[in-house]
Amino acid sequence: MTPELYNSRFLRAARRETVDTTPVWIMRQAGRYLPEYRSVRDKVSFLELCKRPELAAEVTLTAQQALGVDAAILFADLLPILEPMGFQLEYTAGGGPKILNPIRTLDDLERMRPGSLGCPLGELGFVYDAVRLVRKQLPADIPLLGFAGAPFTLASYAIEGGGSRDFARTKRLMYACPQLWDGLLRRLANSIVGYLERQIGAGCQAVQIFDSWAGCLSPADYRCYVLPYSRRVFESLPPQVPTIHFLTGNPALLPLQRQAGGSIIGLDWRVELGEAWKRLGHDVAVQGNLDPVVLQADRATLKAQTRTVLDAAGGRPGHIFNLGHGVLPETDPEQVKALVAMVHEMGVARR
Amino acid sequence: MTPELYNSRFLRAARRETVDTTPVWIMRQAGRYLPEYRSVRDKVSFLELCKRPELAAEVTLTAQQALGVDAAILFADLLPILEPMGFQLEYTAGGGPKILNPIRTLDDLERMRPGSLGCPLGELGFVYDAVRLVRKQLPADIPLLGFAGAPFTLASYAIEGGGSRDFARTKRLMYACPQLWDGLLRRLANSIVGYLERQIGAGCQAVQIFDSWAGCLSPADYRCYVLPYSRRVFESLPPQVPTIHFLTGNPALLPLQRQAGGSIIGLDWRVELGEAWKRLGHDVAVQGNLDPVVLQADRATLKAQTRTVLDAAGGRPGHIFNLGHGVLPETDPEQVKALVAMVHEMGVARR
Repeated sequence: MTPELYNSRFLRAARRETVDTTPVWIMRQAGRYLPEYRSVRDKVSFLELCKRPELAAEVTLTAQQALGVDAAILFADLLPILEPMGFQLEYTAGGGPKILNPIRTLDDLERMRPGSLGCPLGELGFVYDAVRLVRKQLPADIPLLGFAGAPFTLASYAIEGGGSRDFARTKRLMYACPQLWDGLLRRLANSIVGYLERQIGAGCQAVQIFDSWAGCLSPADYRCYVLPYSRRVFESLPPQVPTIHFLTGNPALLPLQRQAGGSIIGLDWRVELGEAWKRLGHDVAVQGNLDPVVLQADRATLKAQTRTVLDAAGGRPGHIFNLGHGVLPETDPEQVKALVAMVHEMGVARR
Repeated sequence: MTPELYNSRFLRAARRETVDTTPVWIMRQAGRYLPEYRSVRDKVSFLELCKRPELAAEVTLTAQQALGVDAAILFADLLPILEPMGFQLEYTAGGGPKILNPIRTLDDLERMRPGSLGCPLGELGFVYDAVRLVRKQLPADIPLLGFAGAPFTLASYAIEGGGSRDFARTKRLMYACPQLWDGLLRRLANSIVGYLERQIGAGCQAVQIFDSWAGCLSPADYRCYVLPYSRRVFESLPPQVPTIHFLTGNPALLPLQRQAGGSIIGLDWRVELGEAWKRLGHDVAVQGNLDPVVLQADRATLKAQTRTVLDAAGGRPGHIFNLGHGVLPETDPEQVKALVAMVHEMGVARR
């Protein structure tokens, strides 16, 4: 790694070192709210955008540039990793992603291709190609983040066949078929590790693991059915690469999220950042945690709430500013740019 | 109140007195999963069922009887309280409730009828009639619970015009128009108090306030925009009547939920009950908190998880067993009956 990258604002904060000001990036920063994104997306389907490295690279780069954020995150989706494992994926306009052959029985598990052995992950070459293209063109001091879904979140898609309100099928299977559950989550964990290792190998300086749906679980169920597999992912990744463990929807899981791993804990907006950091321990970095809807408020509210998050971090090294969840499609890009400028202006060491 | 009612298992636990075993009832116990309910519902629309006291009473009573639970809860819906305030309500099959004239501006607020003055609440006479019918026919030692939505939850329906994923409209209005927000939530709080007082007057022994959507808020926003109005509701109700304050989706709000009021704090399943009770303080009763999906698991899992909740309560007086959210429509009624029997069998003082 070059010294510029190693000493970038983002990576210094990720290692809990002092920084000139608080680094900031925005979950889903290359997304529908950005006109630059929409003009590319208008020409191709969502899956095509994911699978054409030059287009994925373009939207990744333009978002970083337009916003002035301290990290780029690869434009990609959580679900294509399921394709080399044998799942058939479909994106319907407006209706969200669908898995046409969800997993429900032990036979379905046998049918899965052994993504665990790593080699079918070669089919995800378009992702690694996009990483290489982005890394080549990014400013020298801007890290590139890779990412993947966490085992539970991917399992819930694979079982439900799409989004869900109460995750009843997922939980039923988890309770009823421990063998199937274990087989599925092990394979997913192995695939995730292989996938992230390749992203890192292709040029990512850090990775984020999204456990977007784990908030639907009780602490006891998370501990029993999820934590071991998430831990397996974090323990298997190269220790020098910062890993962000993001989970949303249940602040009571924070201590277990920490136990599962990650050198940076990604917080949603449901919890006060200062209190969460205290509970987690200050020997881990944190990321977050502005409510995405605040970007739709007036400038004064945006500034006040941004200051509240920064105050909660208290100038302690190891805070990366972000939203508590992805930026919403109806957000004005000017507000996002203003937020980035505010964080840089009011951040640690410039106070 | 008769001595049988006063000394009923439910009301003793609500006052944190010793009981022969843990009382249990089930949120949405009179609902679609019950064949007795469906046979009534097949004949009339949802709104008609709400508005015909003899039918609402019938489904309330049959559910209590079929399950052997320690309390009945009036069959009613959260939203009809909005009608006397001038909102037009529609229930679409499968699509959830709709408000045809949602509130978006100060003019809309002026348009609202002053439910605050209490008198239009007379239009909800069908609810009080149902209470009277149920109370007349319930066993002498079974309390009847009334209920209402909390100010935030009702406001979010009134603003969004229906359900929502991210409550962006609600939050935007909350941030942008403090005057409109205050006016709306004050009126809602006043209406809720009047509505619950009349339910109590008609024969309810306790009431539950549902803040089903408040979990979408950060602690700072809850404290600023919601807590004062919920507190107003709890402070205005007769102090001798037990009040259950239920909120779902954000365990980080627990201390503020407690501050807002309620003699019993309703917990969802996202939090470990023992830890939640410790955080709340043992000078308040708690209700909960089995994950509703566990009712779809095998009997052994159901029993183990029921025991876990009872163990977390630790035999301390003041625990009312319930799910962490309403029973799901696809639940087998036999499982619910089995759960009630298990709680009675394994509950406090029978251990």
